[in-house]
Parts: sequence; structure tokens; C-alpha cells
Amino acid sequence: MTYTLVLLRHGESEWNALNLSTGWVDVPLSEKGFAEAVNGGQLLADAGVLPDVVHTSLLRRAIATAAVALDKADRHWIPVRRDWRLNERHYGALQGKNKSETLQKFGEEQFQLWRRSYDVPPPELADDDQYSQVGDPRYADIDVPRTECLKDVVARLVPYWEEAIVPDLKAGKTVLVTAHGNSLRALVKHLDGISDDDIAALNIPTAQPLVYRLDESLKPLVPGGEYLDPEAAAAAAAAVANQGR
Amino acid sequence: MTYTLVLLRHGESEWNALNLSTGWVDVPLSEKGFAEAVNGGQLLADAGVLPDVVHTSLLRRAIATAAVALDKADRHWIPVRRDWRLNERHYGALQGKNKSETLQKFGEEQFQLWRRSYDVPPPELADDDQYSQVGDPRYADIDVPRTECLKDVVARLVPYWEEAIVPDLKAGKTVLVTAHGNSLRALVKHLDGISDDDIAALNIPTAQPLVYRLDESLKPLVPGGEYLDPEAAAAAAAAVANQGR
Repeated sequence: MTYTLVLLRHGESEWNALNLSTGWVDVPLSEKGFAEAVNGGQLLADAGVLPDVVHTSLLRRAIATAAVALDKADRHWIPVRRDWRLNERHYGALQGKNKSETLQKFGEEQFQLWRRSYDVPPPELADDDQYSQVGDPRYADIDVPRTECLKDVVARLVPYWEEAIVPDLKAGKTVLVTAHGNSLRALVKHLDGISDDDIAALNIPTAQPLVYRLDESLKPLVPGGEYLDPEAAAAAAAAVANQGR
Repeated sequence: MTYTLVLLRHGESEWNALNLSTGWVDVPLSEKGFAEAVNGGQLLADAGVLPDVVHTSLLRRAIATAAVALDKADRHWIPVRRDWRLNERHYGALQGKNKSETLQKFGEEQFQLWRRSYDVPPPELADDDQYSQVGDPRYADIDVPRTECLKDVVARLVPYWEEAIVPDLKAGKTVLVTAHGNSLRALVKHLDGISDDDIAALNIPTAQPLVYRLDESLKPLVPGGEYLDPEAAAAAAAAVANQGR
């Protein structure tokens, strides 16, 4: 028995295009982002990788990416699960800030520490900040984070993986997870057993379906999985790595 | 304890615009239909009627209407349930046929019988017809209908109402049901106790939120419910009644 898991980072959002740090701020896809999602769905359809169930975050850029890609692949009708634990990393006080300005203000070392270190979160976001999620009804049942490092994302993501995604895989379903750069990095770290240091170098491109075939113990048959469009994925990942420049 | 149920018929589809009978054929929204869905979501937001869960059919015109309206109302993140029992009535051999041509070919009496009688279904659709749903993976677990009358829709809809929608209402959730002209007529017939004869005259306009407040025994506090935009709903219902002309 082999299990099939498909990871899909959302397409470009309006704030990606403006080079602003987004985190939990619920920004819509840009026009380019919608087009990327259509392309992602076409890749799924062309490869015959047809999801039976989709898991998304609670953020509209992931929700819309899933909706658009699945419609394109004629799988818009499959069951949907949504959970905050698939959300992007909370970027703390950097949410809503321009990445280039953050880089200039704090310097390359601090910028990369917040951006890619495993366990150093940015400063906390104040509860009365316009970009705080405190009081947002969708998070009424949780203690909203004020900032997160990747380690924090792993700590919330892995229980969701175990509780919600693994049962769908074990039921024989092809599972699509439509989420964010850092929630997907957290998942890939877990799946591939990547070290706390090595995960820093891993970048996941927007709207490029990444297919993992997993064995019965949920170990990837091909470490790192396989992009349906490897050339486009490599080019897009390189662009992510250069953000803020 | 009062329960809140919101019914929303999908916006105009490409086949509504072409005056073709649609039924289970999975036609996308027209540009006008997307705009109607945005307007429906704005009406929900303006009225502060904020769904906690959404139920849709398996057809993209309802799925997209829900997605667009909920995004507009900032409720895109709520749980989603989809079920074939919310699908439009299966129009049998009329699926894909022009309504005016059907009217001319069969005459006013037969046309209205198929369109509005409670228990006379159109002729069956052949399994090898291009508009048959036999073999569609989304219906793999059911015996796909070849045609349906409204009575058949009630027979499948009411069990879904009891099993899936009522529990959400009783949990105190505001429930949005995004579906189709005839699946919503079936539901309204059940809710309001409308007779088999009288349901013929009831038309539900596209993308106009219809709010039912229900008492503890699920009886409507206001028979027929209340449209959030009564004038627009009345005008749109009159347009539905005149289809085929």
C-alpha cells in the first residue's frame, strides 16, 4: 500500500506582490496568484493526480488557491477540511511590514534569523495592532499566537498531521494540503526528517504541486517528494529564497 | 432558543444565460452569476447574518456561489459540507436542451408539467448521453438518477436535512445552505408545510439570501422566511417564473 499526499503552497498574494510580511494577516490572492492556482490545478489534472479530500488553513489565500486549483482539475466537489494549524507562521511584529525595510532596519543577520532560524521568533505583535488576530471570530477557540518561530509551527502542525491528515491517507485517499510557505516547510521537515539546521535552506514555491508517495510507515518513497513541474518549481523556489532583496 | 437558517440559490450559470435546462450538468457560473454571489455575500455581511457552517451541493455553480459569497462576508474559513442530495433536480432527457425549443416542441402543458408538476418526471436521460452523470467519480457511491420529479428531490433532500443540517442548527450554528432552485424548493416545501399543489407556484431567485428563523420544533417563525433584500428577491423570482418564454 502506497499513500499519496500532495502539497500546494498558495499562489502569490497581494502582499507578496507588495513585498510585505503577511503571516496571519488574511490577504487575498493577486491576479497572478489566481492564475498560478489555475496552473497548479491543470498540472494535477494533466498528471492524473486527483485529490479525494483537501485540507486548507483558515486564510483566504490558501482557501482560494485550493478552490481554483480543484475547480480546474474537476475536483471542486471533494470534502474540505479547514484548520488554523495549517496557517502560515505568525510573523509577530513584522506582520504588515515591508521586507526590504525590515532588512535595511535590522540588517542581514537579524533579518535572516527571523526569517529562517528554527527557534528565534520575531518580536511579539501587540494585541491592539491593526494586524493582530486577537478577537477574530475564526480563532475564538484558541489562544491566538503573538509571534511564532518555525519550531512553534512544527509543534502545532504535527498534531494536526497525526489527527486529521494521516487518517485520510490511511483510508486510501489522495490528500491535498493547501497551505503556506512555513506550514508546508514544517510538514516537509517532519516527513523527510530534516534537521533543525538544514530546514533553513528549504524553500517551497507558490502553487507548484509537490507529490509525496509514502510507504506504510508514512516514509517518503522519494525524499523531498516530486514536483509535477520540476523546472518551474526550481525557478520559483529560487525566487522565494531571494525575497527581501 | 431560535435557530437561523440561510438559503442561497446559486447565481446565474452559463446555461441559465443560454436558456438551457441544466439539472445535474456541472456548468460554471456566468460573469453575472459571480457578481450576484458577491452581492449575496454583501447582503449577509450588511445584515450581520454570519454563517458558522455551509452546506453545498456537488455542483460548481453552488460551490462557487458559496465560496464567493462567504469570502465577501469574511466567512470563507467556516466548515464546509458537500452532498449530492443538495443537487438540482435531475432534468432527465431535457438536460442540455434549450428551454424555448422544449416549450415549442412539446407545448405549454407538457412543458409546465415537467417544469412544475410535483410527481411527473421528464423522460429518462440515456446513460450514453453526453450529459449523463453515469460514471462521474463524484457519484461513485450512489445510483445516479436518470430523471427526477420534485417529489424525488424531496425524498432525497429531507433525509439530508434531518441527518446533516438539523444537527448543525441544534448545535446553535447559523447554517448556510447554498444549492439550487429545486433542491431549495424541496426544502422550503418541507419547512413551511407547503402542499404538493401549492409548491408549483413558488420560485426562488438566484443569489438572494433567504433567512429562516426557526423555533425549537424547527417551525419557521415567519412562514416563507425573509429575504434580506425583499424588493430584489421579488423581481428576480418573477423572472424565474417566466423562464422558457
